Amino acid sequence: MPKIDVCFTPATYHVHRDPEAIVVVIDVLRATTAICTAFKHGVDRMIPVAEIEEARALQKQGYLTGAERNGEKIEGFDFGNSPYDYMSENIKGKTVVLTTTNGTQAMKVAGDAYKLVIGAFSNLSVLCNWLIEQDRNVVLLCSGWKNNFNLEDSMFAGAVVEKLCGNERFAETTDAALSSKYLYQMARDDPFRFLSNSSHRKRLHSLKLKEDIRYSLAIDQANVIPIMEEGLLRDLLRE
Amino acid sequence: MPKIDVCFTPATYHVHRDPEAIVVVIDVLRATTAICTAFKHGVDRMIPVAEIEEARALQKQGYLTGAERNGEKIEGFDFGNSPYDYMSENIKGKTVVLTTTNGTQAMKVAGDAYKLVIGAFSNLSVLCNWLIEQDRNVVLLCSGWKNNFNLEDSMFAGAVVEKLCGNERFAETTDAALSSKYLYQMARDDPFRFLSNSSHRKRLHSLKLKEDIRYSLAIDQANVIPIMEEGLLRDLLRE
Repeated sequence: MPKIDVCFTPATYHVHRDPEAIVVVIDVLRATTAICTAFKHGVDRMIPVAEIEEARALQKQGYLTGAERNGEKIEGFDFGNSPYDYMSENIKGKTVVLTTTNGTQAMKVAGDAYKLVIGAFSNLSVLCNWLIEQDRNVVLLCSGWKNNFNLEDSMFAGAVVEKLCGNERFAETTDAALSSKYLYQMARDDPFRFLSNSSHRKRLHSLKLKEDIRYSLAIDQANVIPIMEEGLLRDLLRE
Repeated sequence: MPKIDVCFTPATYHVHRDPEAIVVVIDVLRATTAICTAFKHGVDRMIPVAEIEEARALQKQGYLTGAERNGEKIEGFDFGNSPYDYMSENIKGKTVVLTTTNGTQAMKVAGDAYKLVIGAFSNLSVLCNWLIEQDRNVVLLCSGWKNNFNLEDSMFAGAVVEKLCGNERFAETTDAALSSKYLYQMARDDPFRFLSNSSHRKRLHSLKLKEDIRYSLAIDQANVIPIMEEGLLRDLLRE
């Protein structure tokens, strides 16, 4: 029976690394939600990069480019990491570059994974159904906040654990997976309220991003599974 | 208002390090429970060491020595890390050396803390009352299991968070502190049962250590606060 594990921050990925596993990178507020939204709205490819300089260099080559640090769009770039930035007709058929505080760092850390896909509440069901079909170990990699544990990513990891273990085809063998599931079960009825005390929510609240949070917590908004191949994200479900 | 933070494994201590904070090292199953038990039963000093070789060298110098790896006592040593090993008259007034899989590693990682004390359910109330009096930042350092998150240490961290934040004299500013508190609140009514699915419990169960677990989850068994000074643990409450 394949196993499911949860890694709470990129800082401990080395402890959870499994060369046979599919890694799901999670940054609910907001990078992986924005990525799912972009694919839903017809983006062709995305290039996640860890450093702002790389993003700037690619922008100079003509790519549309999103860049966020500490919750805010960086001046001079086309987008930040708000999902609403990626609902535009302008991105259809384009390749878009993205760098963010946490999410793109996590993708870099897990760059050697057997397969690396993107998870968010936006694609919860379609992602879980696909993971069940693959029938192999899964590592849920939370981006956290600057290598700190965060509540929204672990809560989403718990939602995946619940779906995958519910059919008894996966085993949650670690306490991290089990605890994530417990947190999700506490949060499920009103995740917005559950997050109301979290550090990230307070930070985003001060940036007036209530709408972003509501959208990011909404389930199954985007029927996409972004997958990394040779440094590029594409939608696995699109021919 | 002083802050309270939780670090889930020694692998991420560098992210949580705060030179002004008191660090509480937690290894509920079973190192820090055993240490509290030893002080309750009159041990004078303890010398926690990270490596088995150091423990063996000190044993040759005549020290009583406890050594555990992977949940089992190492042959040739006087004790393992079961709290029951430290209820003996033999340790009264003595200095005892201890090395364990996780707990003594965590003490080493936090060796440069402003103050380093030992926490377990055994000394929950007396520890929390003392922390409240100190009125400064607290980092709760969970030993985990080989750099993995574990349920029992984070649950205990949550018990401390609840006690310290309950009087509104401490702020739980991180999601890790908040989540620990939630886990503790889920576990409180029947922590033994709550742990029944945990990885550690399964491991210990296979070692037939049910009694150890029950003892380790019992609150306020030992009126002691082991504190590290120059590599030695002593009981802060004993003159």
